[in-house]
Amino acid sequence: MASHLPHPFDPLSGEEIQAATAIVRKAHGDELHFHVVSLQEPRKAEMLAWLADPAKAPRPRRVAEIVVIDSRNLKGHGQVYDGLVDLQSRNITKWIKASGQQPILIVEELLEVEAACRKDPKVIEQCRISGIAEHEMEKVYAEPWTITHDPRFGTGTRMIQGLMYFRPQVDNCQYQYPLDFNPIYDPSKKEIVAIDIPELRRPLQRHPAIDYHHLYIQKNGGYRTDLKPIYITQPEGVSFNMTGTGREIEWQNWKFHIGFNYREGIVFNNITYNDKGNVRPVFYRMSIAEMVVPYGHPEPPHHRKHAFDLGEYGAGYLTNSLSLGCDCKGAIHYLDADLPTQSGEVRRVKNALCIHEEDEGILFKHTDFRDNSTIVTRARKLIVQQIFTAANYEYAVQWVFHQDGTIQPIIKLTGILNTFVMNPGEDLQGFGTQVKKGVNAHNHQHIFLLRINPSVDGQQNTVHMVDAVPIDAPVGSAENPYGNGFVAKRTRLETTGQAMTDYNGSTSRTWDMVNENKINSASGKPVSYKLVSRDIPNLMPKEGSLVWNRAFFARHAIHVTKYSDDELWAAGDHVVQSSGIPSRGLGTWVGNGTQNVANTDIVLWHTFGITHFPSPEDFPIMPAEGITLLLRPRNFFTSNPVMDVPPSYSITPSEVAAKRTGFDTTDKASKLTAMGSQSCCKPPKL
Amino acid sequence: MASHLPHPFDPLSGEEIQAATAIVRKAHGDELHFHVVSLQEPRKAEMLAWLADPAKAPRPRRVAEIVVIDSRNLKGHGQVYDGLVDLQSRNITKWIKASGQQPILIVEELLEVEAACRKDPKVIEQCRISGIAEHEMEKVYAEPWTITHDPRFGTGTRMIQGLMYFRPQVDNCQYQYPLDFNPIYDPSKKEIVAIDIPELRRPLQRHPAIDYHHLYIQKNGGYRTDLKPIYITQPEGVSFNMTGTGREIEWQNWKFHIGFNYREGIVFNNITYNDKGNVRPVFYRMSIAEMVVPYGHPEPPHHRKHAFDLGEYGAGYLTNSLSLGCDCKGAIHYLDADLPTQSGEVRRVKNALCIHEEDEGILFKHTDFRDNSTIVTRARKLIVQQIFTAANYEYAVQWVFHQDGTIQPIIKLTGILNTFVMNPGEDLQGFGTQVKKGVNAHNHQHIFLLRINPSVDGQQNTVHMVDAVPIDAPVGSAENPYGNGFVAKRTRLETTGQAMTDYNGSTSRTWDMVNENKINSASGKPVSYKLVSRDIPNLMPKEGSLVWNRAFFARHAIHVTKYSDDELWAAGDHVVQSSGIPSRGLGTWVGNGTQNVANTDIVLWHTFGITHFPSPEDFPIMPAEGITLLLRPRNFFTSNPVMDVPPSYSITPSEVAAKRTGFDTTDKASKLTAMGSQSCCKPPKL
Repeated sequence: MASHLPHPFDPLSGEEIQAATAIVRKAHGDELHFHVVSLQEPRKAEMLAWLADPAKAPRPRRVAEIVVIDSRNLKGHGQVYDGLVDLQSRNITKWIKASGQQPILIVEELLEVEAACRKDPKVIEQCRISGIAEHEMEKVYAEPWTITHDPRFGTGTRMIQGLMYFRPQVDNCQYQYPLDFNPIYDPSKKEIVAIDIPELRRPLQRHPAIDYHHLYIQKNGGYRTDLKPIYITQPEGVSFNMTGTGREIEWQNWKFHIGFNYREGIVFNNITYNDKGNVRPVFYRMSIAEMVVPYGHPEPPHHRKHAFDLGEYGAGYLTNSLSLGCDCKGAIHYLDADLPTQSGEVRRVKNALCIHEEDEGILFKHTDFRDNSTIVTRARKLIVQQIFTAANYEYAVQWVFHQDGTIQPIIKLTGILNTFVMNPGEDLQGFGTQVKKGVNAHNHQHIFLLRINPSVDGQQNTVHMVDAVPIDAPVGSAENPYGNGFVAKRTRLETTGQAMTDYNGSTSRTWDMVNENKINSASGKPVSYKLVSRDIPNLMPKEGSLVWNRAFFARHAIHVTKYSDDELWAAGDHVVQSSGIPSRGLGTWVGNGTQNVANTDIVLWHTFGITHFPSPEDFPIMPAEGITLLLRPRNFFTSNPVMDVPPSYSITPSEVAAKRTGFDTTDKASKLTAMGSQSCCKPPKL
Repeated sequence: MASHLPHPFDPLSGEEIQAATAIVRKAHGDELHFHVVSLQEPRKAEMLAWLADPAKAPRPRRVAEIVVIDSRNLKGHGQVYDGLVDLQSRNITKWIKASGQQPILIVEELLEVEAACRKDPKVIEQCRISGIAEHEMEKVYAEPWTITHDPRFGTGTRMIQGLMYFRPQVDNCQYQYPLDFNPIYDPSKKEIVAIDIPELRRPLQRHPAIDYHHLYIQKNGGYRTDLKPIYITQPEGVSFNMTGTGREIEWQNWKFHIGFNYREGIVFNNITYNDKGNVRPVFYRMSIAEMVVPYGHPEPPHHRKHAFDLGEYGAGYLTNSLSLGCDCKGAIHYLDADLPTQSGEVRRVKNALCIHEEDEGILFKHTDFRDNSTIVTRARKLIVQQIFTAANYEYAVQWVFHQDGTIQPIIKLTGILNTFVMNPGEDLQGFGTQVKKGVNAHNHQHIFLLRINPSVDGQQNTVHMVDAVPIDAPVGSAENPYGNGFVAKRTRLETTGQAMTDYNGSTSRTWDMVNENKINSASGKPVSYKLVSRDIPNLMPKEGSLVWNRAFFARHAIHVTKYSDDELWAAGDHVVQSSGIPSRGLGTWVGNGTQNVANTDIVLWHTFGITHFPSPEDFPIMPAEGITLLLRPRNFFTSNPVMDVPPSYSITPSEVAAKRTGFDTTDKASKLTAMGSQSCCKPPKL
């Protein structure tokens, strides 16, 4: 199972991270802060050649992408460098100044902010004004956020803002005790350099705590006792295999590589489906590539609350270590993640990903009303999951693979609302909801960017927009006598400009990733994968607003660009403190809108998400809320691809007539409840 | 647990059905065909009084609704009667002619059509023209469908059309061998009275079969062998109780009555949530009340394919008998259904409903990045399910109750596409897809109507439409300096006319069922339940088309009417052969649009569904495709209502600091796979 060489898509191992940082340190000194040490994924052309013939084609080289701040210059706001290290030759093949740009935040600098706040006299003074005594400063907490873009500091001066909270008791949820001012921390000086103080002051509201942890619940009513356990077991083992270096998975005709990086977290590569022996490419690469969470309160500095959690913090850096029987239930396979520390060492996140199967109810069923001949077949799904914590919020990202060729990303939001203090009786003007006395949870959106490099039966794909529309011919006309005619109107998106398209709920709009060069022999239509997505809110920040400028990808539901190896980061390589003017990332790749994206190697960028108007049900901790979409094979297979999944029960008309029993693999572990109902698996006679 | 008297919401028992039909037969003779013998649900005013004080208030009387065709008049097209039978007094309290109306189809008359077709000389002749020899007539199959509305027969003459198929071998799926003509059956004469023959003939295409049953799969490649079993067990029993007469369920603070009738199938009544001892009404009644499936091929007679599966056939009459370990897995409770036969006897559907719990992944989670103090709590859901077979299609209707107060109807579509024969090389003009050689599956929609009589903290409710919108103030203005301000715009729907509203995807439109008289003490906002629904296609048949006329409810996403006891059937009491002109049902209740629906007892009618453009993946049997929506408490609870669900693991900052273990109920049945990953439930230290 193990190979002595990493798969070219494998994340950098701990050893590779240390090798890379050692090479860089040797060349550029020991005073570097490592913000990124991550696999530069193999160039696609080389990789396709290797995948086609791994025995003969050159194996793609292992290359590390490096982003550092040179701390020797920290007093002068450390210089940022982007580099590449060839791990075979041990050469630094690229080393350039990223002038006026700020790399992704890392945990070490985030953890500094709170301690700096607690001892800063200006913060202590503001706490006093808020009603906190100096001896209570250990109860003051700072959540470190990027400053987003603030003209006072621009992009050249690295700054971190603190969102301030208080805990009367260390176990309290601090989000119920927000404070009204924002210290600004300079990580080069390691000190608070400014405090943003609102005109209208809102002192700390010391109302009784509502907590969610067990010590609180046990003292306040206790836990409910009426939930009986559900056990999920696979005594014969799981139905998937991890092959190669342990990161390729084979399951129910699917095969793909599961990567992971600091920024996107889970990355899938080379997703294929074995269609009766024909291994057919589906997507070359798939990930959630960016997100933004704009808050809707216009009063400064709340406009600075619009986290790009992936580009600014990293879904990999923020990922949880998952726990058997807690985060995941059943028979679970885990993958660890090795990430760099600030000093270039390795931090291993145990169980960063979990992989497991679940029963998925009925896969298909049909009963003939004439004789009750029937078939019922149960479905199975495979889930690859990570959970990351972005300060207050938790995002559980589940990638669900279905047996029928459907891929379904699900993002479950839980964790805690971002909150702000409110004065008694304050009119929130519709920009937030009082979720607890004195606590204002602002309106916000969670906007995610799905990035797919499709390879539907090959690398030359085209996106078609599909709308359900009645035909033009009026009721009573020869072409439409009874008025019921309707069709799927198909718009071929040929250029980057045409491809900038929005959702239309009234036409049930979808988008197909089509290989126009391959025709389905059953339908005569080109093979495709359809994006079915319904949670596509408009970006609420207005055109020309700070968020609108910075989040080019969020302006439309769909963008399509021509594939290029280094075009991964829609909001720019370095998102932190970017102004969005001029646009970096997707905005530049779309260009003037004339670039051809038809029948070529393309990338589909899809923006989806939810708009969240908080309510007290969400507080102090949010019951998980999920959003999802489907990537469905349409005209890809020539018939239902799952008919060979063994049915639970199947009996044909001839067997019914002959009073024979059918095919029976009924699950014998299922039981009736003790409440007296009866059952048998055979269909009853009419 | 058992009571000697039925609960007023209980469906009629077999004994009650027989008592009712005996009373009717005694009065009106033995030659009646019973189309409906079903509970007339208790009048709401009486029922609310009884629910408030069952000891003192009069118990609502048991009343049977009756619809019959008097077969003595069948030669003259049997007279239809609507009646009511008081089961206590044994009096017929209503008996009126339903002139010019046709009652719901029943299985006995449906089963007659095929036999009549096989022996009819005109059908035999058309089969011959299609390429079927007379000795093959036993291989000809007729699917009995309502004729919908056909001006030749109007509503006064009952007719059933046959959709014709062929099976070369009895076990073949006949939908791959459609025929091109439609016999019309007169159930009073018990003979074929006409045949609709298209101008363009399309003879039978005898291509090799593709089947889904086990005998075919075993001969053609066999079943896959790599699926390992998943067992789901509840050795300590389930977490719900069936109380009263066995149809009221208590689970995780929910309590409600599970009814069932011939038409809607599952009906929920008196849904309440126990909020820390305060039993709060949520919905008085909830069901899927109607549906329509319009097909999009304009060539007659395909315009007649638009089944109202509930009003014309009945989701109760069509319901499946469910099987342990096949349709349902785990620890399952079943309820049977007693339905009348044509002659007034009783047909019992064993296991018509199944009730069970499932694990639902993470209910909530949060980790503090400072010290990895954490809580992770798993969710449970309760599912009440039925599956009904409407000729070719299967609909699995799942009502999912979540612990947090959310109710989630899910409809999974499976079964087989309706098909029509096509000639080799025929241009389908976009109205269908060739799913197999010679088989055209037409475009169609599945449109469902959710009916809710809300009782959110009382019977006086109002619907508000909610749109997410940026505020008007421009970027750079004092009110919106950075352009990020946005709010939930709330439109109070005060009249039936104002309430006829459509979906708007770009504003993430939702609708709240609000009790304006009850204010949430945390948020200061009125209590409400929010309808979050995203699958809301426009009705594709045009204004003035036959479908548009008949399916008033499908013209808008939302209608609101004032509650009235007998306003249950949106497409009219008797849907069969109705023309839609004038509108019956919802169209009349909406009236001229001026009726008040604010702060009163209201009914919300919500149309949702999908538009289906078939593809070969759907054939010969469709992998299940689900659509869903959410009914969410918003400003209903004063905080997260599920914090007392025992967490899998919880550890607080003080416990982390003291190096204590936290609260641990980790599921011990979960296991690692045998592939070498490691895990522990405790959070790792940074």
